[in-house]
This record gives sequence, structure tokens and C-alpha cells, in this order.
Amino acid sequence: MQKYAAEFFGTFWLVLGGCGSAVLAAAFPALGIGFVGVSLAFGLTVLTMAYAIGHISGCHLNPAVSIGLWAAKRFPANQLIPYIVAQVAGGIVAATVLYFIVTGKADFTTLGGFASNGYGEYSPGKFSMAAALITEVVMTMMFLIIILGATDKRAPQGFAPIAIGLGLTLIHLISIPVTNTSVNPARSTAVALFAGEFAIGQLWLFWLAPIAGAILGAVIYRFIGNEDQPA
Amino acid sequence: MQKYAAEFFGTFWLVLGGCGSAVLAAAFPALGIGFVGVSLAFGLTVLTMAYAIGHISGCHLNPAVSIGLWAAKRFPANQLIPYIVAQVAGGIVAATVLYFIVTGKADFTTLGGFASNGYGEYSPGKFSMAAALITEVVMTMMFLIIILGATDKRAPQGFAPIAIGLGLTLIHLISIPVTNTSVNPARSTAVALFAGEFAIGQLWLFWLAPIAGAILGAVIYRFIGNEDQPA
Amino acid sequence: MQKYAAEFFGTFWLVLGGCGSAVLAAAFPALGIGFVGVSLAFGLTVLTMAYAIGHISGCHLNPAVSIGLWAAKRFPANQLIPYIVAQVAGGIVAATVLYFIVTGKADFTTLGGFASNGYGEYSPGKFSMAAALITEVVMTMMFLIIILGATDKRAPQGFAPIAIGLGLTLIHLISIPVTNTSVNPARSTAVALFAGEFAIGQLWLFWLAPIAGAILGAVIYRFIGNEDQPA
Amino acid sequence: MQKYAAEFFGTFWLVLGGCGSAVLAAAFPALGIGFVGVSLAFGLTVLTMAYAIGHISGCHLNPAVSIGLWAAKRFPANQLIPYIVAQVAGGIVAATVLYFIVTGKADFTTLGGFASNGYGEYSPGKFSMAAALITEVVMTMMFLIIILGATDKRAPQGFAPIAIGLGLTLIHLISIPVTNTSVNPARSTAVALFAGEFAIGQLWLFWLAPIAGAILGAVIYRFIGNEDQPA
Repeated sequence: MQKYAAEFFGTFWLVLGGCGSAVLAAAFPALGIGFVGVSLAFGLTVLTMAYAIGHISGCHLNPAVSIGLWAAKRFPANQLIPYIVAQVAGGIVAATVLYFIVTGKADFTTLGGFASNGYGEYSPGKFSMAAALITEVVMTMMFLIIILGATDKRAPQGFAPIAIGLGLTLIHLISIPVTNTSVNPARSTAVALFAGEFAIGQLWLFWLAPIAGAILGAVIYRFIGNEDQPA
Repeated sequence: MQKYAAEFFGTFWLVLGGCGSAVLAAAFPALGIGFVGVSLAFGLTVLTMAYAIGHISGCHLNPAVSIGLWAAKRFPANQLIPYIVAQVAGGIVAATVLYFIVTGKADFTTLGGFASNGYGEYSPGKFSMAAALITEVVMTMMFLIIILGATDKRAPQGFAPIAIGLGLTLIHLISIPVTNTSVNPARSTAVALFAGEFAIGQLWLFWLAPIAGAILGAVIYRFIGNEDQPA
Repeated sequence: MQKYAAEFFGTFWLVLGGCGSAVLAAAFPALGIGFVGVSLAFGLTVLTMAYAIGHISGCHLNPAVSIGLWAAKRFPANQLIPYIVAQVAGGIVAATVLYFIVTGKADFTTLGGFASNGYGEYSPGKFSMAAALITEVVMTMMFLIIILGATDKRAPQGFAPIAIGLGLTLIHLISIPVTNTSVNPARSTAVALFAGEFAIGQLWLFWLAPIAGAILGAVIYRFIGNEDQPA
Repeated sequence: MQKYAAEFFGTFWLVLGGCGSAVLAAAFPALGIGFVGVSLAFGLTVLTMAYAIGHISGCHLNPAVSIGLWAAKRFPANQLIPYIVAQVAGGIVAATVLYFIVTGKADFTTLGGFASNGYGEYSPGKFSMAAALITEVVMTMMFLIIILGATDKRAPQGFAPIAIGLGLTLIHLISIPVTNTSVNPARSTAVALFAGEFAIGQLWLFWLAPIAGAILGAVIYRFIGNEDQPA
């Protein structure tokens, strides 16, 4: 139970911190944090939680990461469902808290996109579905290579949360204009429930592409990390 | 005495660095640091002090943190009062130094908000008291989970100052628009004394909410960290 | 083979992340990441990959770095050609992926500079060829001193990826206005192939200057690191 | 000789990177790095050099730091003069290289302030001499507390360059508007030689205040660190 609670609170933090900074602070007049601040916020949710709960649950906070770790033979299949349920639940509770805060603004009128992910006309920069698909696949693929490499026994010990957290920052610095950056189906699902039908209608891509990318990343790291060789 | 002096100078640095960057540099014409810079500054005061004085006093710099650590059975009750006194005193001296610098500006006319915390009409984004309350509770709750987790014996050793400092950066990236971000009653008190009656009138929330959030975070981490189990 | 694949994917990430953030996100209306975000992105590609594949290939991701390490007697001559081939190939594949994403924008009209490097009229700030040459030589020289020093046996172990990655961030913070910052012939070549004849015509400088700077840095570190003394 | 060469190249990098980012990139149209980028650049020069040459010379890069370390009984008096000479020389050579690059801009007309430090009418925000003096004293005092604490034997080993480098970033985030931030007489002297008579006329403050602050910081840390107690 401790593991699932850790994944719940960790993903709660990822969605509240990442999407919260985007909704509350990105476009604040004159002093707003912009995409740089949102990128930093998403990455720091993972960096902080990886140090805080990494020793409890491994700190996945992301169904695609759990599936990628399973594909890389680092995570047991029978834990996949409870981990994913805890992650999605934590994300939804975070989106609920964020909804409460945002609607408490004196001049509140609309949620806007509520930090939801999208392609085509719902892409921040109006990128096509194909561009969104390849972006999410490649970003999640590289995210898994970073995760698997930085937690490899041969890598320096203790530094993985820095590499992984700042890796998520980097992914956002590149790809917010394309899809608002998902690489995480739990994060996409949580805010889509509040953002409206358009976001739910595009949600399939933000489950499919991150999971495909994660499996691809696992396959690549098993090759370059030489992990199928007998010891 | 060394411990109390360390908390004094550490909280001095937190208020001078965090509130100082906000007052002096956030809105500088064209080149100002904005909320991203202020968030970074607050976090780096804690990161730097945690490496500099962590081995002396534990580097709390915050009455809510001291109380949360006590609630998590990591800090003795009889040290609470002297720690909190040292923290508030350090903050007030920092605000005094900052007041001296700010009024030394050639075209000085008004202190403005002097980086004070507020809700309702004194919230940067005009967020309601209820939104401010839940924001401060949840942010401090997660801050304590990060602190307790990153300093857990099972977490990588030596990295806690990075996780905790950048955790405070993250908290500011999210919540400056809501309350100007407190999560720290000493920081709120120090600048409220200079900011004017409105800030003192709202100060109760910035003692109540961070302390409540800190205790909540302690309770949650004791569960997910499984700390009540016999060893 | 694992080593060359690691260099291929690592340089793929450097070009996709660094040049991708520049092309996609730097100038996004109102919320764009600017030169600060691009500098951070380039540095984080190296920081993340150094933790992920440092134990496999050493994570050079840059022909000038490989040559500088050879000049410092830390890398065998017979590995230079395959490393450089893998780096350039990885960069070109990244530029191809980026080209596909960019042209998937609904209102796509032109690639612009496509993050290519340049001097004179193709320098972001219109700096002369001589200024560009000295900038690239000195920046790569310092980059190699950082790399050789931070991986010295006497330096703290495990931290080199932070020093080297953030060193590349620093180099970009200084020199994007001068040459758009290369210090890496593979990065320059990859995007020049898509940017047009002007970029290919200036490519010689972005091979010559980084390699000259890298060798100079190796010579300097061998002196200050006292590496030619008998043990 | 290796030590002095290391201090020479390290201070060269501090001035070229910190002042160079300010002069070349801070105010670049639309995409410039602002005070946040300059703050990051100054800090990263120290972070990178501390990992690269810390094991050679201790990486002071600053006469006030060398004097503060002497006052804290961590550095021998007979090394003060050669260290300070090497630091000032490295800074001047960096300013010369930067001068060459800047004047290579096609539309070059004036050096402007050339990142020099100043007070009164030469303060970026027009702060008085008294405000400048107290700012430089307090900032250098806290810088020395960070340096002495983070390199204390009881602090986590290997992390000091992160604390010290990001400490310098923090100092710039606060105080660029006041004095353009010195805390380092070598940095102030190097650019003042190119900036003009006004900068040289105010140089006394940027030797006096940092050195006074450094000694004060040393005295404070010896007390809170309990360093005068018998072991």
C-alpha cells in the first residue's frame, strides 16, 4: 500500500506543480514564467519526488514509464495495473485541487485549455497530428533511455533524480509548442477531464504515443547498455 | 547557541535573498528577473544554506518546517521556541537591511507591497481567501514530504539540499500568483512589519496554513515512509 | 558497436534537443524560451546523456571533444574516426526528424536559419569572422578544460556530467549572439545540410575553430593539471 | 606555478563568462537573457571551474575570497599576493578578449558600461553609495559563509561547487540592480580598465566592501561553525 500511496502523491505533485505552474503563472502579466518556468516546474516535480519517494516506489509517476521499465525487465508485470491506477488517481485529484484554486480568482471567466495536451488546432503552435505523434514518441523514447541509463548500476549512484528530472525539463523546453508536452498519459488524462470534449477526443494519442515511445526506448537501451549479454 | 545563530543567519539570507530579489530585481525595466528569477532566488537561499549550515542546525529557516519535523518525530519539542525566535529575528533583520537598501534608490517613492504575502485584493492575481488557504496548506504539505523523504536514511546521502532548495523554487513557480508564496511564517512576518497594516491584518493565514500543511505532510510521510513500523 | 550506438543516440539528442528548442520554442509568441531556454536545453542534453551513457561510450557527442581528449592522451587515436562518424550521423538524423516536425506546422513557410551557425551577416548579432573565430576557439578551449578537470581522478566523483552539461549551458549564454554557438562540428554540420548554401559555405569555421580550441584546451589542462609529471 | 595558472584561467573564465554574457547577450533584442541569464552565467563560471580546478588551486577566482579564507585560517598569508596577482591578470586578459569580440560587431558604436560596477548615477537602478556599500558588504559576507560552510569537513563531500556557484547566481539575482554586482575586486578591476574614468573612480568601493564583507563572513562562520573550540 505504501508504494501505491507514494505513486499517488508523486503524480499529484507532478500534475499540480507542472500543470499548475502553466495555468497559474505562465502568462501572468509582465512577470510570468513562460515556457521556461513551466519546463522547470515539470522537471522539478520529478526531481523532488525522486529524492523523496524513490526509495519507496521507484517514483515512476507516469504509466508510460512503468510500462517502459517493464519492457526493460526492471519492473514486474503484476504491479503495472495498481501503479497506473494510483498515478491516474493522483493526477485527477491534483487537477481537482487546481480547478478549485483557479476558479477562486476574482475575475475568473474560463479555464482555457487548462494545460491540456493537443494536436492540430489544439496544438499551441498548430502542429499536425503526425508531427505531434512523432514528437511524443521520440521524446518519451529518449526519456526512457535517460531513466534506464541513469539508474544503471554502472552510472554514478544518487544522481539519477537530477538527470531524470532535468531530462523532463529539457523535453518540455523542446516540445511545449508542439503538443503542450505530455510524455505522460496520467498527466494528459487528469486535465483533459476538466478541459472539455476536445481534449478527451485527442486523449488517445497521449496514451498511444508515450507508451510506444517508452517501449522503443527500452529496446534501444537494452541494446546500447548491452543488457541481454550473459553477465 | 551556535544552532540558533545558524538559524538566525540562514533565515536572514532566505528573506534578504528571496524578498530582496523580488523587491529589487523582479520588475527591473526590460531585464528584470520576473517570477522565474524570484523562484530561483528563494530556492537557492535554502540550497546554499543547507550545504553551509545543515551540519550545524539542520537548516530549517522556517517555523512551519520546525513544527513539521517535530510532528514527524525528527525534532525535539523543547527546541521549537528558540528555533522559531531565531528564525523570526533573522527575518526581521533582513527586512530591515532590505528597507535600508530600497530607500537608498534615487527615485524612491514607495515600498509597494515589499514582497508581502496576501489574499483577496492583496493577492498578486486576486485569488480568494479560500484559494489562498488551500494553496498554502497543500504547498507546505508537499514541502514537508520532500524534506522528510529527501532526508530519509534510505534516500541518497548528500543530495537533500538540492531536492529541498529546488522544491522551494518549484513551490514559488506555482503559487506566487496566488499568495506571493509564503509556506514560511517567518518570511511573511518579517516583511509584513514594513509593508503596512493590510499585510499584518492578513498575517494569521500565513502562520495557520503553513503550520497546518506541515503537520499534514508529516502525517502523510509517516504513512508512506512506513515510519511507524517496528524496525 | 554499443559505444558507437551510444554516441549516435547521444548526438541525436544533443541536436534534437538543442537545435529543436531553438527552432520550435525560442521565439514562440509571448511565452517563448529565448536564449536562456536554448542555453539550458543544449546543456541538459549533455547532462542527461552523460548520466545515461557515460558508462558506455564516455559521452563525447562532439568531434572536437573526441579530438581534445585524444590530444590530452585520454582517448585512443583508432577510435576517432568511428566516434566522429557516429556523432555526425546521429546529428543528421536528428535534423531530419526536426525538419519533419517543423514542416508539420499549419502555417509553415520557411525553415529560417534552422539553428545553423554563422558569422558576418549570418551571425545573430552580425559579428565579424574574426570575432566568431576567436569566440569559438576560446569557448571550446574552456569546454575542454572543464571536461578534463571535472573528469580528473582528483575531482569529486560522479559530478562531471553536471559540470560539463552546465558548462555547455554557460557557453551558450555567452556566445549565441556571436555565432549561434557551435563548439561542436557535428551539431553545425547536421543543421547546415538543411539550412542552405550559406550555412554550408561557412561550415569550415565550425570545424576548424572548435578543433583548434579543443587541442589548445588539452595542452593547457595538461600543464595546469601537472599531467606530464612522473607519478 | 600550476596553482597560479589555474587561478589565472579560472578568473579569466569568470570575467569572460559573467561579464561577456552581460555585454553580449543580456539585452539582445526579443531573445536576450536578461539579469536571470547573467546571474546564471556568473554562477556557472564558478561551478564549472570549481569542479575543473578545485583540486589544483582551491578555485578562489576572487581576491576577497582568498582574503576571507585567510581570515578563517584556511589559507596561508604568503600565498595571498601571488593568488591576487593571478586573479587580476586573468580578469584583465578576459576583458581584453571580450573587448576584441565586442568591437567586432558590424554596428559597434560604444562599449557602454562594459559590465562595470558602480553606485549613484552609475548604479543600474540609481542606488546611493551607502546602499551600494551595505549591499556589497552583506553579499560578500554571505558568500564567505556559504564557501566556508559548504567546504566544512562536516558538510556533504563533493557538493561545495554546486552550493558556491549557485550562491553566486543568487547574489546576482538580488543585487545586479544595485551595483551590477561585484563581490569580486578582480572582476570589477578588469572591466573598469576598459569602461572609462567613471568606473576607475568608483573602483575603491569594489575592493573595500567585498574584502570587509569577506572578513566579516569569516568571523561569523568561525563562531557558528564553532571552529575555535579545541577538538
